[in-house]
Amino acid sequence: MIENCARIWDEVRVKTPLVHCITNYVTVNDVANIILAGGASPAMVEHPSEAGDFARIAGALYLNLGTLTGEQEKAMLEAVKGAAAADVPLVIDPVACGVIPRKITVIEKLLAGGKLTCFKGNSAEIKSLAGLKAQARGVDSVDQGEGLEEACRSLAESKNIVVAATGPEDVVSDGKRVAILKNGTSLFSSITGAGCMVGGVVAACIAAAPQDPWLAAATGIIAFNIAGERAAWLSGDKPGSFRNMLFDHLYKLCGQDILKEARVEWKGQQ
Amino acid sequence: MIENCARIWDEVRVKTPLVHCITNYVTVNDVANIILAGGASPAMVEHPSEAGDFARIAGALYLNLGTLTGEQEKAMLEAVKGAAAADVPLVIDPVACGVIPRKITVIEKLLAGGKLTCFKGNSAEIKSLAGLKAQARGVDSVDQGEGLEEACRSLAESKNIVVAATGPEDVVSDGKRVAILKNGTSLFSSITGAGCMVGGVVAACIAAAPQDPWLAAATGIIAFNIAGERAAWLSGDKPGSFRNMLFDHLYKLCGQDILKEARVEWKGQQ
Amino acid sequence: MIENCARIWDEVRVKTPLVHCITNYVTVNDVANIILAGGASPAMVEHPSEAGDFARIAGALYLNLGTLTGEQEKAMLEAVKGAAAADVPLVIDPVACGVIPRKITVIEKLLAGGKLTCFKGNSAEIKSLAGLKAQARGVDSVDQGEGLEEACRSLAESKNIVVAATGPEDVVSDGKRVAILKNGTSLFSSITGAGCMVGGVVAACIAAAPQDPWLAAATGIIAFNIAGERAAWLSGDKPGSFRNMLFDHLYKLCGQDILKEARVEWKGQQ
Repeated sequence: MIENCARIWDEVRVKTPLVHCITNYVTVNDVANIILAGGASPAMVEHPSEAGDFARIAGALYLNLGTLTGEQEKAMLEAVKGAAAADVPLVIDPVACGVIPRKITVIEKLLAGGKLTCFKGNSAEIKSLAGLKAQARGVDSVDQGEGLEEACRSLAESKNIVVAATGPEDVVSDGKRVAILKNGTSLFSSITGAGCMVGGVVAACIAAAPQDPWLAAATGIIAFNIAGERAAWLSGDKPGSFRNMLFDHLYKLCGQDILKEARVEWKGQQ
Repeated sequence: MIENCARIWDEVRVKTPLVHCITNYVTVNDVANIILAGGASPAMVEHPSEAGDFARIAGALYLNLGTLTGEQEKAMLEAVKGAAAADVPLVIDPVACGVIPRKITVIEKLLAGGKLTCFKGNSAEIKSLAGLKAQARGVDSVDQGEGLEEACRSLAESKNIVVAATGPEDVVSDGKRVAILKNGTSLFSSITGAGCMVGGVVAACIAAAPQDPWLAAATGIIAFNIAGERAAWLSGDKPGSFRNMLFDHLYKLCGQDILKEARVEWKGQQ
Repeated sequence: MIENCARIWDEVRVKTPLVHCITNYVTVNDVANIILAGGASPAMVEHPSEAGDFARIAGALYLNLGTLTGEQEKAMLEAVKGAAAADVPLVIDPVACGVIPRKITVIEKLLAGGKLTCFKGNSAEIKSLAGLKAQARGVDSVDQGEGLEEACRSLAESKNIVVAATGPEDVVSDGKRVAILKNGTSLFSSITGAGCMVGGVVAACIAAAPQDPWLAAATGIIAFNIAGERAAWLSGDKPGSFRNMLFDHLYKLCGQDILKEARVEWKGQQ
């Protein structure tokens, strides 16, 4: 299984897929830079009159609901229609959906207008989408992750999508198969945008391997986590230096590194 | 007095207050990262239909008038109402208020709709709010700070708020007490967003110590300045490296460091 | 000729011109920081009710069509009018103009309402404006640059402007004179915003030397390229570190460095 992850990761660099993003303006620069570091090509196109046509030519569409302006909301609705019409995979990051009611309203509109491939959220967001109670502080999860695996599995199964939840351990499920990802670093929570960045990397991997979005999503998170481990160690646990090194190490990471360093528990039919 | 600053600073990390920010999109990533580095939890929530409810659950509300979109303006008006209803401290950063007339109009609306705790601005902005002439170049102050202390004191007294003005020396007053803060580095003016970042840190400190917003504001500026001194020294006066190290050093800074390194002149009733 | 470039570069620091920017929110922080590193003073002022008056007091106006909101579009129209009325040089970065039809519509409105000094784009964008076919992937050029020199020259001549096209080699023409700029690094394409940043630096140089916008534009690109070469070498080809060092090295760069390190081929009447 991990050999396939390594292969998917190397394919991102070979294919350089175009990742169309409409994302919050807090971490948009980080999202663009991390997608570039991973070997894909980001494009932030988010005017309502531009987004629909652009989504059709992308390899994947990544929508992040962080600081969602009215104009972005309209652009997202156009983009999901374009993506669905052209069979472009759609990744939604449901930022703060458990805390801010408008996010749920927008998610419902997006699901009604398009075809979702993957939800990527933190554990509080994913549990909230699965109908469970979760602990959040503002936009950040402080959830301990009890019941997260089942929440991912059942949400994935009921919607026939991939669900990826980040936390101390990350969980990725397509309803049948589950991967528990054990790489990573607590420094991710000392910077803003780790969740947004990994969402962009997940979208890049799904663009490179649309035939298996579950494994592609797991690949993106594994790669990001390994880069994070290296950056945390080399930065001496300093968040400013850590963030820079994250780009450096994801840029240098290749499939071979995933083979050597990934720590994954695979469950279910494979 | 400085012992209380040290205590407030350590309390930010213990309490991890939620700081609701509506801020300019130029430096919003830096503001989020510096609030995290200080130990608080930033949330940029700025749609008009989200901001009012969110402000009620925050520890402080930070409004920065930099690149103020029409939608942000509406969200700010909702947020100040929510904050006032829930007794959430409000910090306003009146970016470019002496140069761009619209900023004054918006400030007046915000003051009419909410309850201000603290103005944090550069010396040109604060002098302009106090009715004095000041030297600005675009959004940057090139004011030498003559009369700044009295401007802060009188503005604070007349509005019954805390006023914090940054410059070569920073001044913080609540109308009776004045603190002159002497740490810092000229490298702050070689990067964009130093003023926005210190505003976010001030809001985090006021959220942790709402009983004394004057001392809390001084604490935030002192901590930021000491981190800046260390970063300037270690970066060899290079702005790119300096900016990263600023996050590193604020993250590592504790109350003990403030006790050792703060240089403050305290004036007035104490 | 290169002596004049060195002189223009040093004059940016002496004059500290105000550069009014309306630019995409992906790389706006980088644009502000690189303008500061170059010695000029950036101001991102982009509300329709603010931009017209502000453009009149600026040394140059830089418009970047990246993530162009409806509000930014209106602000740009006000800004070009203000700039034209006060003889403020106007630099337009026509991001993705060959791929997204709305960009062309907006450019036509801006040209009708104002007075253009310089187009600065990547080679795909410039060739597209010159009516040639070009290779782009999303917002990035993957064009090899065939015919670029003639495209720049003819576009510059027909519109009586300066045209600057970045690529493996950069081309700057005013319709008669052509400069081929040979410094630079392929790492520019491993980060987002290199094109936006060099656009801001070009605007700063034109603000410092409005009497010769052709040579000023070349100067800005040369300086940015040399800083990039140094940063690439010292960062060990790591994009996160490279980006930080870019600010450091542009900040330290002086006219003397341009004299020593610039590699330029000058053509045409001089």
